[in-house]
Amino acid sequence: MNEIKTALVISAHSADFVWRCGGAIALHRSLGYKVTVVCLSFGERGESAKLWKQEGMTLEAVKKARRIEAENAAKALDLSDIRFFDLGDYPLELDREAKHRLVDVIREVQPAFMLSHSQYDPYNTDHMYTTQVALETRMIAQAWGHNPGQKVLGAPQLYLFEPHQTEQMGWKPDTFLDITPVWERKRAAIECMAGQEHLWEYYTRVAQQRANHFKRNSGGQSGGRDCKYAEAFQSVFPRTVDEL
Amino acid sequence: MNEIKTALVISAHSADFVWRCGGAIALHRSLGYKVTVVCLSFGERGESAKLWKQEGMTLEAVKKARRIEAENAAKALDLSDIRFFDLGDYPLELDREAKHRLVDVIREVQPAFMLSHSQYDPYNTDHMYTTQVALETRMIAQAWGHNPGQKVLGAPQLYLFEPHQTEQMGWKPDTFLDITPVWERKRAAIECMAGQEHLWEYYTRVAQQRANHFKRNSGGQSGGRDCKYAEAFQSVFPRTVDEL
Amino acid sequence: MNEIKTALVISAHSADFVWRCGGAIALHRSLGYKVTVVCLSFGERGESAKLWKQEGMTLEAVKKARRIEAENAAKALDLSDIRFFDLGDYPLELDREAKHRLVDVIREVQPAFMLSHSQYDPYNTDHMYTTQVALETRMIAQAWGHNPGQKVLGAPQLYLFEPHQTEQMGWKPDTFLDITPVWERKRAAIECMAGQEHLWEYYTRVAQQRANHFKRNSGGQSGGRDCKYAEAFQSVFPRTVDEL
Amino acid sequence: MNEIKTALVISAHSADFVWRCGGAIALHRSLGYKVTVVCLSFGERGESAKLWKQEGMTLEAVKKARRIEAENAAKALDLSDIRFFDLGDYPLELDREAKHRLVDVIREVQPAFMLSHSQYDPYNTDHMYTTQVALETRMIAQAWGHNPGQKVLGAPQLYLFEPHQTEQMGWKPDTFLDITPVWERKRAAIECMAGQEHLWEYYTRVAQQRANHFKRNSGGQSGGRDCKYAEAFQSVFPRTVDEL
Amino acid sequence: MNEIKTALVISAHSADFVWRCGGAIALHRSLGYKVTVVCLSFGERGESAKLWKQEGMTLEAVKKARRIEAENAAKALDLSDIRFFDLGDYPLELDREAKHRLVDVIREVQPAFMLSHSQYDPYNTDHMYTTQVALETRMIAQAWGHNPGQKVLGAPQLYLFEPHQTEQMGWKPDTFLDITPVWERKRAAIECMAGQEHLWEYYTRVAQQRANHFKRNSGGQSGGRDCKYAEAFQSVFPRTVDEL
Amino acid sequence: MNEIKTALVISAHSADFVWRCGGAIALHRSLGYKVTVVCLSFGERGESAKLWKQEGMTLEAVKKARRIEAENAAKALDLSDIRFFDLGDYPLELDREAKHRLVDVIREVQPAFMLSHSQYDPYNTDHMYTTQVALETRMIAQAWGHNPGQKVLGAPQLYLFEPHQTEQMGWKPDTFLDITPVWERKRAAIECMAGQEHLWEYYTRVAQQRANHFKRNSGGQSGGRDCKYAEAFQSVFPRTVDEL
Repeated sequence: MNEIKTALVISAHSADFVWRCGGAIALHRSLGYKVTVVCLSFGERGESAKLWKQEGMTLEAVKKARRIEAENAAKALDLSDIRFFDLGDYPLELDREAKHRLVDVIREVQPAFMLSHSQYDPYNTDHMYTTQVALETRMIAQAWGHNPGQKVLGAPQLYLFEPHQTEQMGWKPDTFLDITPVWERKRAAIECMAGQEHLWEYYTRVAQQRANHFKRNSGGQSGGRDCKYAEAFQSVFPRTVDEL
Repeated sequence: MNEIKTALVISAHSADFVWRCGGAIALHRSLGYKVTVVCLSFGERGESAKLWKQEGMTLEAVKKARRIEAENAAKALDLSDIRFFDLGDYPLELDREAKHRLVDVIREVQPAFMLSHSQYDPYNTDHMYTTQVALETRMIAQAWGHNPGQKVLGAPQLYLFEPHQTEQMGWKPDTFLDITPVWERKRAAIECMAGQEHLWEYYTRVAQQRANHFKRNSGGQSGGRDCKYAEAFQSVFPRTVDEL
Repeated sequence: MNEIKTALVISAHSADFVWRCGGAIALHRSLGYKVTVVCLSFGERGESAKLWKQEGMTLEAVKKARRIEAENAAKALDLSDIRFFDLGDYPLELDREAKHRLVDVIREVQPAFMLSHSQYDPYNTDHMYTTQVALETRMIAQAWGHNPGQKVLGAPQLYLFEPHQTEQMGWKPDTFLDITPVWERKRAAIECMAGQEHLWEYYTRVAQQRANHFKRNSGGQSGGRDCKYAEAFQSVFPRTVDEL
Repeated sequence: MNEIKTALVISAHSADFVWRCGGAIALHRSLGYKVTVVCLSFGERGESAKLWKQEGMTLEAVKKARRIEAENAAKALDLSDIRFFDLGDYPLELDREAKHRLVDVIREVQPAFMLSHSQYDPYNTDHMYTTQVALETRMIAQAWGHNPGQKVLGAPQLYLFEPHQTEQMGWKPDTFLDITPVWERKRAAIECMAGQEHLWEYYTRVAQQRANHFKRNSGGQSGGRDCKYAEAFQSVFPRTVDEL
Repeated sequence: MNEIKTALVISAHSADFVWRCGGAIALHRSLGYKVTVVCLSFGERGESAKLWKQEGMTLEAVKKARRIEAENAAKALDLSDIRFFDLGDYPLELDREAKHRLVDVIREVQPAFMLSHSQYDPYNTDHMYTTQVALETRMIAQAWGHNPGQKVLGAPQLYLFEPHQTEQMGWKPDTFLDITPVWERKRAAIECMAGQEHLWEYYTRVAQQRANHFKRNSGGQSGGRDCKYAEAFQSVFPRTVDEL
Repeated sequence: MNEIKTALVISAHSADFVWRCGGAIALHRSLGYKVTVVCLSFGERGESAKLWKQEGMTLEAVKKARRIEAENAAKALDLSDIRFFDLGDYPLELDREAKHRLVDVIREVQPAFMLSHSQYDPYNTDHMYTTQVALETRMIAQAWGHNPGQKVLGAPQLYLFEPHQTEQMGWKPDTFLDITPVWERKRAAIECMAGQEHLWEYYTRVAQQRANHFKRNSGGQSGGRDCKYAEAFQSVFPRTVDEL
């Protein structure tokens, strides 16, 4: 089948997709995937401290600034399909209508795989809520009786991208992705996040550490494949394979 | 690289490899893999009840009968390399020499992946002990200072095959393998286990149930690939990939 | 005391009680229990794929068909008290009024034990939501200040019946129930589910596998009691006993 | 800095703070802390059985009685700042306005540490819901964009105080606090709970058992510090220290 | 069948059985069970601090004193079959011969249920080692090929009795046993432990707290059965039942 | 009391203490602690790949080189008490005599706290074995009957230092230590590890990432204390405190 493959990222706040799976996005773009990112909120209240420290800042101005940063980052990642649901943050909440809007996107995209947050996060309840919604809307998208006539969803993997302070979240990666070929794109996207410059080096180091783990698991000191930058993911569902 | 790929099964007792990964063995044989099975014991004390119920049975006679069954099963699976360590069972114990013997096999085989038991089994401590030894010997095989000059091991995945009463073992499969193409071989191997005829249908049903799970995870009612027989595995180590 | 003993099943969708605890229902009916089943929804959107594939299907028609199937299954299980809350599915949601309606049933029934879904289910968030509601309404039913004057609830066990793909749900059974005496009833109930004929054999095999586990845990090869069909359950609360 | 240190307790029902952290409150008061307790409800429906057993009891009368008990207990603990949100119990629910009200208190108090319930409680869903809200409101209080201009919250520890039947809640204490110096205050507060006299001795024994654990962990039979009464807590977040 | 039922306790040190399951022993004795206790060691090195603080104490004298205490406690519990393996403690270690000796006892007793320690105990590795050995020897006792001709073991439950500091051990009780009818016997047995008088009240309180839990789980404030003293246990294996 | 405080590190291989707790060692030295490091082996077989790749290398030469590196690192950390048990690695095994030798050191040192590896490590069974031995020997050191007359051990905390690939080890840090003041010492010690130069930057980044976590947990964007380098630890035992 020469259909175009697709992927869907569900991001609680508008910057999460950059730090946590920007490499996966750029890499799959380079592999020909169509990638869609849904930002449920702009992180305007909770993840824009630097902006709020400016005199006279308003909610609309923060949202606008965050949107521009996210759009620029998307461009850097060669991502054209980014959608802002603007649902508010801290706390993020989806009513039935918002969930159906997300189901519509899932069905439209028909992703080969999905990406979202860890299932537990005591520091940031928006993150774990987003994953709960991702599971719920994935299920609705699979229902033949939801908007009958639409194409129902298959059973895409849901990968949980790397949270901050992984051990506190009970997140355990089972998949390391080599993002070396697209690292420059990810770094460029990271640098679009002007408001969080203190994190640029932090997430560069994350990618370097994960590259070390990639090498250990691909063979270690006995033929492990080289890798300079990587991202890590936890799968929610089992894989189905024809070869181990 | 057109090297032949290899796989290694470490089986506590001489019948375990048949019930638990006979499909994986036959399938990878059909894919051109060289597969090696090490049976650490014959299960002569603990897994040969039917034989022991015969008048005048001796330990040697049980071991011989079990060996013949295992060899026949191996043939049915198109497996030529099966090795019997004859270390005794209930309890199984490996001294340093026996561990080194196993390390030698690991280095000789240089497996692309390994297969063994679950990490916890309150019903059968031989099983969990075997996995502990599999991890320990995998580590020794990676050591440059163990028998310097030998080719050291890379970082093969260790898959844990399906135990009996999975939930009691804390075993959670993350990989379902379609064994439909080789099912007849696995069933034939199962039928070599004359002493455990009561389990033939049990393990046939296991394969059918896992096929149902395969389908659910490959797309469910919306395009899930058909599958009639499957086996399930839990990975110990993360995967390294170039595409999610 | 020669009071009639009672049991209550809380089922997210109208077919769940058949596959997952039809044997327990029929068995306790045969023991003289009064059993009540509450179906919170018909599973009309998410669990009726076959019906929706028919031309011109409507939500009402699906619900009607599902209701008839459930009522027929109930009859097959000798169950006369089945109640349809018709709250919608995918997603299922209970507002305060719906919860109070469920509390009313719990208090009316005064169950010796309750049955519901597993506590985690990433495939089906309706299932885990139902169990959360079961715990919440059980608690409300115990409150002396909720509808004062009504008889308050004691502390019935909540058994979690077997989910699909048990290991993915983190569900671990601690109780195996022999349903051999009522198997024909359960099979008859299963066959009322015309829309899910592909699952008849699947759930028959589940019962056969659980019977094997029953035997292993009741004595194994040394006097284990025979059992041909069983169901498995996980207890939420500890038991109080006068003999181990 | 000679600022007054502060602590905040979030209690689902109006008596929880007495049984579960009355010692911590009295002790930190004696250390000069300003302590604030928020009672989200009076536990009027679910935790006032004795009152409801009285003829002609009304919801308002129960709430009033519970409030007086709590205020008396507060006095016994030398606690002057106790706030009743009166949000109803069994089930307890906070809408956005109630959450913002709680955020306001958190920001006003700027606690050095917070105290609330265990994260899981199948017996009492109000308890685990309260902790979920505690995490969510702690997060909102940290957001620079929530009521900009207010002083945002730092990163106070959230201690989970001891639930009933600890093992069923998956609660594991990592911190034992010696409350011997203030035990008389805690006991006096406990005795303000006229409606639950059957629990006075129970919670006295809890404190004695925890004192035994304190001693074991402070040195045991080789110099463990004496302690007659203690309370136990589980930390949600890691500590930051300058000495191990 | 009017066979006498039997039970077997495997105790790491000679006093463990008293504190942790003295009630279960006395109760089952009163129910007509034959109960056997195996003390693998006397706890002579690690659990006899008070004796060692006496001038001129020797290992033999400690063992003798501990043996007398245990025998007296056994008498108080109406237990006549107590066996001392005298294998040494801190650390306790069983070689193959000692394990076979224990297997012999298991087969001789043919217990309806077994009792031993928690599976994890970072304070006392003898305890968790004992449980590991209990599982291993239970397995060997089930093997038809171990001492063929002997009666093989069925599948007795293994109950894990209550450790000190339960939450640190990851121990979660699922069974509460009412020991009120035999409490005086347990208390008398406890008072035989002259060397650990500081623990008499501690374990009396444990029994009282567990009685409170018994009541909560048998019906709570709505008809919960009264209970003054109880013991708690965790089951390793699932139960097989004919009624939920 | 103006006694000198002490700490003890139990390191499986001779370089582990440098990467994993070199900062804690140097910091506590600067605080006046006497610190002792026990290297159970040199890591001569399993952690000296670079040396073994040299022509004509021998086991003795590797051990010597590793010892010199470790001694130099110790000096860099201002650590004078480093002891090499030379027990061999891959696999590391301690017989009773070796364990008693370790107990002797524990009693001699009387540590205020101990440091060792994570409790689970499927990549390196020497690491988890070492922690098991650390717990066992800590217990023996507490026994009044082990070498009566010696000063018995109290109840020091056992901190588990950071393993490689933390999430795979099930290791969760609860304590972050600021090592900024001694970072230059740790970096100097790291640079003594000539054979593992590829890890210098890796472990520098680990310290930088942990510093970020330190800041988040000490107050985040609202007054979090600055920190440039940190180490993380998991506690095995609960803390006993006089203030939360």
